[in-house]
Amino acid sequence: MRLTAVIMAGGVGERFWPKSRQNCPKQFLSLTSDGETMIQKTVRRLAPLVSQEDIYIITNAHYLPLIQEQLPALPPENVIAEPCPRNTAPAIGLAASLIARKYKDAVMFFLPSDHLIHHEKNYIETLRKAAQAALEDKTLITLGITPTYPETGYGYIRYQSGNGRDGVYPVECFVEKPDLDTAESYLKSGNYLWNSGMFIWKASSILHSIKKYMPELYQGLQPIAQAYGTEEFDSVLNEKFPGLPSESIDFGVMEKANHIFTIPGDFGWDDVGSWLALERINPTDENHNMFDGNVLSIDSHNCTVAGNGRMIAMLGVEDLVIVDTADALLICKKDQTQEIKKILAELKAEQKSDLL
Amino acid sequence: MRLTAVIMAGGVGERFWPKSRQNCPKQFLSLTSDGETMIQKTVRRLAPLVSQEDIYIITNAHYLPLIQEQLPALPPENVIAEPCPRNTAPAIGLAASLIARKYKDAVMFFLPSDHLIHHEKNYIETLRKAAQAALEDKTLITLGITPTYPETGYGYIRYQSGNGRDGVYPVECFVEKPDLDTAESYLKSGNYLWNSGMFIWKASSILHSIKKYMPELYQGLQPIAQAYGTEEFDSVLNEKFPGLPSESIDFGVMEKANHIFTIPGDFGWDDVGSWLALERINPTDENHNMFDGNVLSIDSHNCTVAGNGRMIAMLGVEDLVIVDTADALLICKKDQTQEIKKILAELKAEQKSDLL
Repeated sequence: MRLTAVIMAGGVGERFWPKSRQNCPKQFLSLTSDGETMIQKTVRRLAPLVSQEDIYIITNAHYLPLIQEQLPALPPENVIAEPCPRNTAPAIGLAASLIARKYKDAVMFFLPSDHLIHHEKNYIETLRKAAQAALEDKTLITLGITPTYPETGYGYIRYQSGNGRDGVYPVECFVEKPDLDTAESYLKSGNYLWNSGMFIWKASSILHSIKKYMPELYQGLQPIAQAYGTEEFDSVLNEKFPGLPSESIDFGVMEKANHIFTIPGDFGWDDVGSWLALERINPTDENHNMFDGNVLSIDSHNCTVAGNGRMIAMLGVEDLVIVDTADALLICKKDQTQEIKKILAELKAEQKSDLL
Repeated sequence: MRLTAVIMAGGVGERFWPKSRQNCPKQFLSLTSDGETMIQKTVRRLAPLVSQEDIYIITNAHYLPLIQEQLPALPPENVIAEPCPRNTAPAIGLAASLIARKYKDAVMFFLPSDHLIHHEKNYIETLRKAAQAALEDKTLITLGITPTYPETGYGYIRYQSGNGRDGVYPVECFVEKPDLDTAESYLKSGNYLWNSGMFIWKASSILHSIKKYMPELYQGLQPIAQAYGTEEFDSVLNEKFPGLPSESIDFGVMEKANHIFTIPGDFGWDDVGSWLALERINPTDENHNMFDGNVLSIDSHNCTVAGNGRMIAMLGVEDLVIVDTADALLICKKDQTQEIKKILAELKAEQKSDLL
């Protein structure tokens, strides 16, 4: 069983400003106290299953130096720089084409680069089980996450929980982000999983489905895939890729195809969606504060601090997110972290591009 | 009429941490948008009355370089470095001795170095009037401030408001910091002024009173005063000054002497007692924020920010004092600014002397 992985690392993640910047988004940041960046974690935790030469990164040209710096052992030709973002379907199609040319019947894990997994052993076992299932004819598998609370910020997968075989279940449908009442009913029913954006399939299976449901994309991919490994690859990629249809694999394939399966994952997954996630993924003190850095706190409660070496002295404050960097400081009420985009809009309007 | 000034600049002012440090206390900071430091303001606003050669600064040895840097035009011999703090009476006695040796019947203004005056013309006129009154035989004058609200953090002067002559009134007594009810009754009565710590007298008058009420201090000052202008001055000062009694002029002389007078000052005085003062002495925006620095504020109210060049982005916060420096950041709830000393105690306990 030949296992490969394709990691999507092109996101610009504005929600971690001011640590994340256009030239260094979330996947290249360390948000845990161990100093490892999100993408380093993503690659490292695959080690028991996938060798480095079979790990591909889809990113954009700006981030090539960061990837080289953070993942020096990765073969340079495995890092594909999209000339422009075209959503997941073209990225997956291109990666699957390259893998299918290299190996007959290789399984491909398609994974985000900026999520966190607490129980890595469970995770690896789940991926291994998914890979076994994916080897069956044209099976497409999406990894679901067993929900632990009624989250309204995720899409859900409705699945036939009574109709599984070896822990693999048929997907009924994908549903959009629910309101709180709906999310609570999903949680109670036991028939819903969080949609994690992680997929497992044979490269040939997903190519087959792309050919069937997105023929235009399939055709557009051919000249690019054929140029891979030649001197013309970069110029062909830059010429042809922008013309591919911009579409998600969810909408383009998964919601249309039959015989989609899911495996309920239970391995402490966290998408680390905003600064608020830091208090989930890091230890907190007796006053519910999460401090990363040189913090002196007196009478302060329920604060999250991401420091930068400098002393941060807090006196009598609560419910704040404080993020310190060399050139910008964020002080944000916890219930306002979704509004960080307003700051970025303001910085854009003021043309302070060095801070974006 | 020969007018001289003695400015007290030895304070270590912890309330403006982290901008104020042991090696750069409040009087050497600029807390207004004009960039002028507190002591520079104090010296500059005396220009219509006192020439530079007649301005003396009492400080401690650590601050000599700062004074030379901020007040380069001051004669070096006018800056007296106390080897150790001994409260106001020895400082005043020493300065008065030096002035009395230089001029017969010079008037001496004794002034703090870290207060703010909004209406400088009124201030100068008040000092001029006080100087005229001080020329009368042995008159000691304390400048009072007409109270504008029931402040509980100041001492008060009770005076005979119906018994004035040319705007100069007899003092009945000095009273300690009152509670709020008492302060309100003071405000209503019209017979109370804030005690500003500014004094006006002939050098010979205060020396006469020190001789009478603090004979030990008077005797102790003689060898130091006699060494002034000689090569031995520094060594005599360092040898004799630590043996002088540590006492305030208020307790040692003013509360004992008869015939103390006051002039109610009405010139926008502010002692800039804590970070909260910044919103009084600087312009605020429509959300009652006071921003000094590079601030981007969204949905934030009633905050005071003293920046340091770096961008400070605030989102949905209120009632905070934020002070940014190169090596330390303070984020403090407004009603907790009196507790900054707790931070300093903690830093001392952790032996982080570079941050003190």
